[in-house]
Parts: sequence; structure tokens; C-alpha cells
Amino acid sequence: MKKKLNIALMGSGFMGKAHSYAWTLVNKFFDVDYEPVLKVNFGTDEELTREFAEKWGWEEISTNWEEVINRDDIDIVDIVTPTYIHKDMAVAAAKAGKHIFCEKPCAVTYDQTREMAEAADKAGVVNYLNHNYRRVPAVAFAKQMIEEGKLGTIYHWRGVYLQDWVMDPNFPLTWHFKKDLAGGGPLFDLSSHAIDLARYLIGEVKAVTAVNKTFIEERPLPGQRAATFSAGGEVNSEKGKVEVEDASFMIAEFENGALGSFESSRFAAGRKNYNTFEVYGSKGALTFNFERMNELQYLNLDDPADEQGYKTILVTNMTHPYAGAWWAAGHVIGYENTFVHAMADFLKAVEKNETIEPNFHDGEKIIRTLEAAALSSEEKRRVEVSEIK
Amino acid sequence: MKKKLNIALMGSGFMGKAHSYAWTLVNKFFDVDYEPVLKVNFGTDEELTREFAEKWGWEEISTNWEEVINRDDIDIVDIVTPTYIHKDMAVAAAKAGKHIFCEKPCAVTYDQTREMAEAADKAGVVNYLNHNYRRVPAVAFAKQMIEEGKLGTIYHWRGVYLQDWVMDPNFPLTWHFKKDLAGGGPLFDLSSHAIDLARYLIGEVKAVTAVNKTFIEERPLPGQRAATFSAGGEVNSEKGKVEVEDASFMIAEFENGALGSFESSRFAAGRKNYNTFEVYGSKGALTFNFERMNELQYLNLDDPADEQGYKTILVTNMTHPYAGAWWAAGHVIGYENTFVHAMADFLKAVEKNETIEPNFHDGEKIIRTLEAAALSSEEKRRVEVSEIK
Amino acid sequence: MKKKLNIALMGSGFMGKAHSYAWTLVNKFFDVDYEPVLKVNFGTDEELTREFAEKWGWEEISTNWEEVINRDDIDIVDIVTPTYIHKDMAVAAAKAGKHIFCEKPCAVTYDQTREMAEAADKAGVVNYLNHNYRRVPAVAFAKQMIEEGKLGTIYHWRGVYLQDWVMDPNFPLTWHFKKDLAGGGPLFDLSSHAIDLARYLIGEVKAVTAVNKTFIEERPLPGQRAATFSAGGEVNSEKGKVEVEDASFMIAEFENGALGSFESSRFAAGRKNYNTFEVYGSKGALTFNFERMNELQYLNLDDPADEQGYKTILVTNMTHPYAGAWWAAGHVIGYENTFVHAMADFLKAVEKNETIEPNFHDGEKIIRTLEAAALSSEEKRRVEVSEIK
Amino acid sequence: MKKKLNIALMGSGFMGKAHSYAWTLVNKFFDVDYEPVLKVNFGTDEELTREFAEKWGWEEISTNWEEVINRDDIDIVDIVTPTYIHKDMAVAAAKAGKHIFCEKPCAVTYDQTREMAEAADKAGVVNYLNHNYRRVPAVAFAKQMIEEGKLGTIYHWRGVYLQDWVMDPNFPLTWHFKKDLAGGGPLFDLSSHAIDLARYLIGEVKAVTAVNKTFIEERPLPGQRAATFSAGGEVNSEKGKVEVEDASFMIAEFENGALGSFESSRFAAGRKNYNTFEVYGSKGALTFNFERMNELQYLNLDDPADEQGYKTILVTNMTHPYAGAWWAAGHVIGYENTFVHAMADFLKAVEKNETIEPNFHDGEKIIRTLEAAALSSEEKRRVEVSEIK
Repeated sequence: MKKKLNIALMGSGFMGKAHSYAWTLVNKFFDVDYEPVLKVNFGTDEELTREFAEKWGWEEISTNWEEVINRDDIDIVDIVTPTYIHKDMAVAAAKAGKHIFCEKPCAVTYDQTREMAEAADKAGVVNYLNHNYRRVPAVAFAKQMIEEGKLGTIYHWRGVYLQDWVMDPNFPLTWHFKKDLAGGGPLFDLSSHAIDLARYLIGEVKAVTAVNKTFIEERPLPGQRAATFSAGGEVNSEKGKVEVEDASFMIAEFENGALGSFESSRFAAGRKNYNTFEVYGSKGALTFNFERMNELQYLNLDDPADEQGYKTILVTNMTHPYAGAWWAAGHVIGYENTFVHAMADFLKAVEKNETIEPNFHDGEKIIRTLEAAALSSEEKRRVEVSEIK
Repeated sequence: MKKKLNIALMGSGFMGKAHSYAWTLVNKFFDVDYEPVLKVNFGTDEELTREFAEKWGWEEISTNWEEVINRDDIDIVDIVTPTYIHKDMAVAAAKAGKHIFCEKPCAVTYDQTREMAEAADKAGVVNYLNHNYRRVPAVAFAKQMIEEGKLGTIYHWRGVYLQDWVMDPNFPLTWHFKKDLAGGGPLFDLSSHAIDLARYLIGEVKAVTAVNKTFIEERPLPGQRAATFSAGGEVNSEKGKVEVEDASFMIAEFENGALGSFESSRFAAGRKNYNTFEVYGSKGALTFNFERMNELQYLNLDDPADEQGYKTILVTNMTHPYAGAWWAAGHVIGYENTFVHAMADFLKAVEKNETIEPNFHDGEKIIRTLEAAALSSEEKRRVEVSEIK
Repeated sequence: MKKKLNIALMGSGFMGKAHSYAWTLVNKFFDVDYEPVLKVNFGTDEELTREFAEKWGWEEISTNWEEVINRDDIDIVDIVTPTYIHKDMAVAAAKAGKHIFCEKPCAVTYDQTREMAEAADKAGVVNYLNHNYRRVPAVAFAKQMIEEGKLGTIYHWRGVYLQDWVMDPNFPLTWHFKKDLAGGGPLFDLSSHAIDLARYLIGEVKAVTAVNKTFIEERPLPGQRAATFSAGGEVNSEKGKVEVEDASFMIAEFENGALGSFESSRFAAGRKNYNTFEVYGSKGALTFNFERMNELQYLNLDDPADEQGYKTILVTNMTHPYAGAWWAAGHVIGYENTFVHAMADFLKAVEKNETIEPNFHDGEKIIRTLEAAALSSEEKRRVEVSEIK
Repeated sequence: MKKKLNIALMGSGFMGKAHSYAWTLVNKFFDVDYEPVLKVNFGTDEELTREFAEKWGWEEISTNWEEVINRDDIDIVDIVTPTYIHKDMAVAAAKAGKHIFCEKPCAVTYDQTREMAEAADKAGVVNYLNHNYRRVPAVAFAKQMIEEGKLGTIYHWRGVYLQDWVMDPNFPLTWHFKKDLAGGGPLFDLSSHAIDLARYLIGEVKAVTAVNKTFIEERPLPGQRAATFSAGGEVNSEKGKVEVEDASFMIAEFENGALGSFESSRFAAGRKNYNTFEVYGSKGALTFNFERMNELQYLNLDDPADEQGYKTILVTNMTHPYAGAWWAAGHVIGYENTFVHAMADFLKAVEKNETIEPNFHDGEKIIRTLEAAALSSEEKRRVEVSEIK
């Protein structure tokens, strides 16, 4: 019989839903030794939290996060709140000896991420930072191919992550536009994912040269329940200042010599969750677009010259990473399944008390790179990531 | 508090898994009045069934289907067995007053489908035939667009459903190759889906002209646990006769005057679950490919002539059919979610004791068309669907 | 120095332009021993013909086709008139000992094609039937791959050729709608191309089962200069009867056992010149779409299972068929270049007095198949091609 | 009768062929008042030049460029030599009062381009710089749409131009790798095109931040007749230093406030002539990929929200820019036709003695931007274009 693990979910928005889904399903699809128990859900809005918890079967709710984290019966703290509070919650959880599953971006500053990593290391708890796109089967398969040497020496990385959900100037000033709450705009929200993928697939960024840009300087204050991807209720007639960029374009020099770029924007009409990358190497190339997440494009320079071309691999075979847990070749899966994959790997790490990636140390490196980019944009010069202390 | 509904799941293979997933989730994502209880799982292989039931949380198992169906505490009978037994189970369930959720194809003969429909009508139970592709958001959106008249008069339907899982001549003779167990080959397995979509989207088929073809006449007898999409254990050295077609090409004349086609094959290299359609009308056209199930292609003849073109709509907006229950624009969903949609609609029908589509009467019409196609292929002539009595 | 060859161009419409282009260029791009001289252009409308001839540099014009064909100084007769007159011109040209380059479809009846082939055989003249799509580099490359055995045993052919230029019920009754002038509708105009490609790539058709359909029964009589793809001047208020089908769907059984289909329509909104095919074999598959004529999709079952997928080959390498004559990899070519390829091959055949394909014998087989399809649609039954005498 | 214009073609390589093609055809497809006469072809290799001239019908050849340019009977000087000599030839041609048609990039330095522009202005000759991609119908149509306001305020430009023809470390050190002959690597060769397109479509670049990168530092000296896209004969065992970058990534800030990027590389496996752009505005977006040059993707934010999506417009209608001169909707054209368009426009400018774009002043602005990018990469900082004097 499986050992029960009590989960505390900190937050109940868009990500709370995705995590609740995944905690419900993880041991149906993957062979893990634990049965996650949806123990308690923390939220600041009691009514919303109660409603959410009932729907998803969280046994209890609370509006006091410190109490929740310090409960003796909690094994795992799962953090899905706005970014600014990640650090306090994660440090508290580490101190309380809880394993931590934390949404991205890691925190709003490089300093905070170091504090998180140190606390987790000191406490010896398993900590996981949910850059979930690593666990799309097509991406995990890309990793496998690159590790097998199928791309040879890497020359280029092109990471492009575009959305359009705030293009309307009347989209309100949600927490995503406040530097102290979000860390930054698409640089933190989107490029953090892209940088995680680049580090995962090809290696560390050495130096960045970036330009950030804000198109809409002021926005109406938000009404009730505005949230990620959602304008919420009626907006306020009062306006406030946007503190983050609307778009961030960055050139990256990698330690291995590759030349790359990260371009993210919330002002790219028609792009909903257009998280894409291209990797070019001496032996081949791979491209990925999350909006067609079951596909990976592969160009193999070992093919006969006249038969070369980008191949669309449907990464749904039973032998593809993670895919064997699901349906059958050609039976495509969705966004939500990446969370199940993440939890399966996390629970295996918990079982063996092992390190899992990405974790708070990865968060450190990512946020450090983002801060380097912000500095580069501000000082209009190339910045070595190591300059950020 | 939600009213509990006890489910009996008849079968535990590929489809049993998909249905278990959906029963687990339906009331998390959709606002239904019921809480489905995973009461009992019937299977012929006790060990496999027990394992499956434990994983998915079915409270009990049984190897006696008649007993299960006649249990007083069962509200819903969910049939995911091989096709040949659908009729017996459905008729028994209807007689026992149970609502029925049944996998496709409806049955192995037109006669059987009529018996099923009559039994369900007589008993007044809600009955649903799970041609799940209707409930892909992109397909439901196509339906909405067509009903709003956006395509005008329909001229053409092109339904193409291709797979390749049995191309290896050593793929064993599973039940899918036996006429009395499966009804037919891809005609029954794949074209039944395509015909359901055509009927849903544009109307009834009046006459068919078809050619069926078998490429591999004999196959090794199956080993242990061969199943849909899976060769199972070691194959037998003994061979048996393939009784169904490997491919079925059909021209269809619709009652509304449209000229269409249905082409299905299990011998189309590289096509995994390539369930596609194109609809051409006087005002526009739509195309769909399940392997990119979150997308719908739309050509609008009302656009300025020089700006016309096939548009790729990502059907993931919160305002698209079913999509509002899930994540956010651009956050694509998967195959499994169509089952959740079907169950949500089914449970609403149960609540109001209403008819839901497709049901056994739709099954009747579909299987009648398939029998017309089989007769057409046999007699090498056009057959009116009404000829099948 | 190159030997001069005097050309007589019979007709001066859309195809006259394409042929004039190609005669002008053929010995610039290809190494042929002849210099084609644009000697004389026949047309029925003297004014239009004069204008056309001046633009393209045809030395003389004539409105008497028999005279032109029988001129001693003419070496090659190039026929681009409406279909009904192909036979008379071709037979006259053969009798006069001229080599013949003839547009497709070959003629309006099987009988006529036999007469053409016999006359050409008897006269021993080189005769070429311009199903130009064979000479798209991607198609010629497909042929090469199939001949090398890369597809193995062929299971399926799917030829789909869709247009939409006559969807408007007020598009006038040009010659394309008259059976005695055109032979048929899209069956003759479009499926003839598709059948040529199928024969070229995979082999002969043994039997067909077809349904033709006319959506618009009457159309206004045409005004001045209505032509292929063009409604011309103001239409007449008077209407005339459409004598050909608007769409033709056909199932084809090939002599080699493959099951295929040919679907052609002029009522497919948004499809301009959507001439596509898919070939599925035991070792791989190929797909082609003329609207992306520089690309060929290839699926190789010999690739590792997890790396299989349809590959988009850009068929523009200097080593691809015909492509070496043009620019460089990635520098795509257009429709018009297929005519240059055809003329280069034709002139080589003339030089060596060799057979070139397709020729009038191919025309015979194609039109025979089309007549079988027309009969099948009429008699609502499968027709063996050999039934057409 | 048309007035004859005598052309002198300076050079006879890849571009000489494309220009010869276009001079041959321009007045067949476009209504221009001139008949270009292929008068004289200059080349340094007499044998190659003679062969080329004979094939294309150039009446004479010469190995003395100054003599050619100063001939009284020459009306137009068409420059297709390596970049380093553009300036000298153009200045000489202007002084001799000849109209100039010049290949890109304009010259190897900003200084040279100023000299060219001044000379042409002073002489009052028509001068045209052949960034031919402007005259792809899809690009000209994009321009038209943007000018009609269909994209609203422009937020982003993403210009990506990738090739792979020098990835092999043994590809020899042709003139493309020498700074004084080529100006730069892909920055000059490829990004110059992309910058031309950006300036044409959305406006001037104000500041750039760039990183150039060379992957292969030394290459074998070239053998006989190595040229653009072609390694030529056997390479030398001796090696020489590569003086230009292999890849250039640039962030661009536009005067109108848009944030953009230009990424070019010759080390992108599988990309042959992947010249692409994306433009995002407040009302819509457009994307283009030269390898599918007949297509333009368009996203219209005025479409109903649930029907929005990227639309593939096949820019081959008779009413699309330039397309009316060619065939019919769906009959795609190729790379070579852009040269015909350019010459048609050039000859119209000559006729009216009008300015045509792009011209040497555009060349000035483009090369200035490239020099700013080179400086940015060198000094590792943002550079305003106006800093380049």
C-alpha cells in the first residue's frame, strides 16, 4: 500500500487548478510510491479558496500561510502564489523541513533565490522549481537527442516566447505589472522559461545584451479578481504606473560558444502561448512550438543531402519520454499533463531524497541571468552574468 | 451537496483507462450535479482487472458482467469492451433501468444497433454512444460555425482517417481482425467516427459507393494481452485468417446534395491517429486534423478576395466550446479531455433525463451506412443506405 | 552552332503564354542542341493573336490552322487550343511529319486519343502530351525515390485536385462546361493530371468506381474573351446548360494491388490550384501539394521509430532533378518552369528521335480511365478500365 | 515600336544569370516602353564570360570594365560583381551619365555608399539597389496592407535570415569571407536584405545592439571558380583567415518606437534561404518566409475573437501586386520573377526619369546600420545609427 503524503497548496488561482489536477492524477498514470493527500489549501480570499478547495477536494482551507506551512502533518509545500512571496514561503517551508514544489519564476530577485536555495540546502529538503516545459515529452525527447550527440556542436539557440493577453491598453494593472510583485514583465514571466529550456538543452549563458521596452506606460487599476490571463471585473477609472517591460529582446552568448537569443513579448498579436525554440548544431537542428506541443521538428545532416528536411515527429510513441504513461501513438496530450510529469518526478525524488531539476539553484542561475538582462537594458551594454552579485 | 452516481465500468483496456480518467475529473472541471462513484469494474482477466481497479480507485471488481449490470446500486453502465458484446450488455443494462455510456462502434451489425436503440427507448434510459471526436473543442466550434451559416450550402465532405499500427505483417490477429468481434476493419473502427462527424456537421448520407481492401490475408495468432494498438506478448507461430479489410475507401452522396468521401486505412505509414476532415461550402471551408486537435482551419469567402486564406484558429479561448473549463488561450489540451466533455454532457442529460447525441439511434444510422458500404464493396455497385433493412 | 527549329504555336491563351515563355528560355537553362524559333502563331481572333505574337516575338500569325500545320518550314506543332480540336490538329501535324507538343487533356474521347496515337506512330513523329506536373522537381524526385524502392510495396494513392474558380453561379458557360469541347469537367481537366501522376509514380489503374456531381445546372452565356480562370467581359443575360460535372470523386484499384482515390472539384472554396497527392507504401510515404511545389514530404519507416515523421524536403538542391539548371538551394522556382523542363526533354527526344513520356499513348490510357469513371458514375457501378473499347 | 535600351552587364555569376533572365523577359510580362538590348557583358575570366554571353545572347563581351561603362552606346549599367567594386563602377557609370541597376549590398562601407549616392545625384541618373525581396508579391502586398493601416501601431519586427552553405569547415575562403571584398559576413549579405525589408515595411532603425560571432576562424584557400553557394574546384591545402562573422544577432530600436531584431547566420542547418519576417502591430500581424514566397500569413485582430488565427494567403491573385502579370491564382511563381519585377519598375523609372526605391540613398542607410551593428558588437554596447559618420 502506498504511503500517504500530505500536501499544502499555497494559492488557488490558475496554477492552483493545474497543480490540483496533477496531484489528483499523478499516481494513476505513474508508478510512484506515494499517494498525495490534498490536505490543505491556503488562500487570501476565503470565499474563493473555499469554493476552489471544495471543487478539488482539498480537505481544509486556511488564510494563514505560516500556520499552514508549519503544520506537523504537512509533508509537501506547493507554492503557486504571485512571485513576490515565493521566497518567504519557501524559506519557511525549508525551515519546517518540508519538501517544496514551487512555481516559477523562482523569486523576484537573485538575492531571494539565493536565500531560497541556501535554506533548502541547509534543511536538506527536496526542492523543485516548476519550469514545466522541460517535461513536455517533445522537449524531454529533444534533450535525449542532444545528449546522444545528434546535434553535434551547438551553434545557435533561438528562444521566442510570445503572448498577447495584455495588448489592450485597458487591461488592468494586475500584479504582473508591478516590479516588486513580479520581478519583471515577460523577461521574468516568459524568458525565465526560455532560459530554463536553453540551460537544460544546451548549457549556461555567459553574457547577455538586452533591450526591454514598455509600450503602455499606465493602466487602469484592476477590479475584482483580475488575475493571470484575465482582466477580472470592471476596471477602475483610476490609473497606475506600469513598472515592468512589455517586451524583452536579448542576445545571449553561451559558455559553450553558441550564439543565441531570447525574445519575449506580451504584445505579439495572435500569439497565445507561443513558447518556441530552435537549436542549430553542426550535425542537425531541432525546433519546438508549445502551441503544437506534441510535435518536435528535427533536421538530420546525416540524411542523404537530397533527402534532408525538417521532419515533424509526433512525440506520442509509447517509447517517447513520459508518453508511455498516456494513450497511444497519435493520441496527443495537453498542457496539464506536464504538471503530472513534474509531480511524478518530484515524488520519485522525495522517495529517494534526491536532487531534482530544475531546483532553487537553477532558479538562482535563471534569475541572475534575468537581472543581467535588466542591467544590460538599463546600461545599454553587454553584461556578463557573473557581474550580478 | 452533489448526488452520488454509481458507475459500473465494463472492461479495463485502453478505453477503460480513458473513461476512468474522465469519471475521476468530470466534476472538477464541469459544473455537474453529480459525483460519479467508481463502484465496480468488470473484466474477464481477474488479475488485470484487479490491478487496473486498484490504480484507478474502482471500489470492487467482478468477472460476471450480468451480475454487475443487474446490481441495484449501479446507476450507470459504461461499456468499453470489444464491440461484439456491446449489444448484449446494453440491452441488459436498459432492461435493468441503467443509463448507458457506450464506446463506439455501436455494435457489429445494424440489427444489433436497432435492438440496442429499441431496448433503451423502451426502458427510457439515457443512452450515449461515445464518438468522442464530436467533443473536441475545435469540432464543436466547427459545428457552431456551420449552424450559424458560415459555410453556406455544403458542397463537399472529405473525411480521411488513417493509422499504421498493423502494417507489420507479424502484428497478430487480435479481435480487431475478426468480423464477428469487430464488425469490420477500419470501416467500423475509423470510418464510423468519420461518419459520425459528417452526420453531426453536415447531415445524413443517402448513398455510398465503396471499395474495401485487405493487404495481409493471414496473421499470426496473438499472444498474451495483445490489445488495441499493442501487439502484446510473443506471437504464435500459427496463423489465422484476417476477416476484415485493411482499408476502406468510400464515396458518399449526402441527402443535402453534397458529394463526399470517407477514406480509412490501417496501412498509411506515419499516420498515427490522423483523423481529418474538410468541409467545403458556398461561403467558406473548414478543415481539421486530430493530430493537431487544438486547431481549426477556416476559409471565409466573405473576407476581401485578396486577403482570403486558410486561417489556423487555436480553439483554446475561454469562449470556445468546452475550452472555458480548462486553462487559458494557447494552453492546448489533449485527447483525454474529450472524454471529460462527453461525461459532462452525459451527466447533464442524466440529470434532466434528456436525450444526448450521439446515441444508439445515431449508432443505428452509422452502422447502417457501414453495412451499405460493405455491401457496395461486395457487389461492386452504388448502394442506397435505405437498402439495408 | 545550334540548329534552328521552327515552332508553330496553335492557340494564344493562358497556355500559349506559358509555352511562349518556355520556348524563349529553354536553351538558356538547359543544354539542348536546338534553338527554337518562334515562327508562327495561329489564333482565331486575329486582333488578339497579333497582340500576343508581338509581345512574345512570334514572327508571323495566321488564322488558318491547316495551312500553318502544313507549312514546309515548320518543324514542331505546339497545340494549346481548347481540347476538342487537339485530335484534328495532331493528326494533321503527324501526317505532315511534324513533331508534336500537345497540351492536356489529350482529347475529348478515348477514340480520338487512339486516332492521335496511331497517326503519330505511323508518321514516326515525336509526340508529347504536356501533363507538366510530372516535371516539377519535387515530383520527379518522388519518382526517383519510388524507383529506388524507398516506398516498398505501394498500398495507397490519394490524388486530390481542387479549385474554386467557377463557384460563382454567374461565372459564365465557357467552353470548359461543354462536353463536346472539353470532354468533361474537373474529371477531364484535373483528374487527368492526377491520373497521369499516379500512372507515372505507381502504375496503371485497373478499375474505377466514381460519382460525378453538378451543383450549378445552368450558367449565363459568356461575354467577350471569357477563358480559363477568367470570366471575361460582361456575361449574357441568357443562360445555357452546363454539360459537365462540377466535381468528380473516384476510387481506383491499381493493377499492382494498391487502393487509391482521385478527387477533383471546382467547388472547393479557397483551393486555387490545389493539386496534391499522397503515396503510402510498406517502407514509407510521400506527399506533395503543388501550391508548395518546391517541397516534398517524406516519411521513412527505416528511420528509428522514435525519430519518424514527415520531413519537408525543399527540392531545390543543385542535385535534385531539373533544379541544377536554376539557382541555388532554397531559391524556389515557379509553375512556369515546369514548361521549360518539358521542352528541354522534348527537344532532347526530337534530337534523338526518341519516345518521350507522357505521349499520346499515355493520353489514350488516361482518357480511357476517365471514360471508365464517367461510365461508372452513370451506371452506378464499378467499371474495369478494359471495358472501355 | 519600343525604344531600345542598351544594357551593359558587369559580372556573370549567379546574379548575372538572374539578371540576364529578367532582361530577356521583362517586356513580355510587363508593359514597359523599352526593349532592353543585351549589349555587352563584362567579366574578368574571358572564357567564362564568353560562354555565359553566348548562352544568354549578350552581343559582345569585354574584360575592361571602364571601357564598357564609358561606351557611348550603353544606356544602363547593371552591376552584379562582388561588392567591393560596386562603388567604383557606380561612380564611373554616374559620371558617364548611365542609369544604374546595382546588386546588393550597396558597397563595403558607409563611406562608399555616400560616394555612390552623391555621384548619382549629381549626374541625375536613375539608380536602383536590388534588394529584390521587396518585389516578392507577398512582400509588396504586406506593404500595401501596412500602409492601409491594417496592422495599426507597429510593436515588433523580427527579421530572421538563415542559411547553411558554409557550415562545412572545408568550404573554402571565397571572397565572401574577406572584409574588404564583402564588407562583412551574413550581416552584410543577409541582414542587409532584412533591414531593407524592415525600413520598407515599418520604418527607420534608430539604434542597434549586436553580437557577431565567427565559428570557423580559418578556411582552405579556394580552388578554381569557387563562388556564391558553390565551393568550386578542389580546395587548396593552404588556409587563410576568415575576416567576417558567421552569424550576427542584432536588437533594433526603431524610430517609431517598435522593438525589433535581425538575426542572420550561415550556420543554421537545413535553412537554405530562410529569409523570414514577422511584424506585430496593435491591429494585427504578418509573417513571411521566402522559402514559401507565394504565401503571406495574416492575423487580423478585427476578426471575431473566436475566429482569429494566422491566415495563409496565397498571394497569386491577378489583383495582388505584380501577380497579374503572371499566370492565375494558385499558379505559384519563383525567385527569378522578383528580378523581372525589379526591372519593370526600374524601366518605368527610367522612362519618367523618376526616383525608384531602394536606391543608393537607401543603401547608405542600410550600410550605416550595418556599420553601427559591427561597432556595437565590437564595443559591446548599444550604438545609435547616427553615431556612424
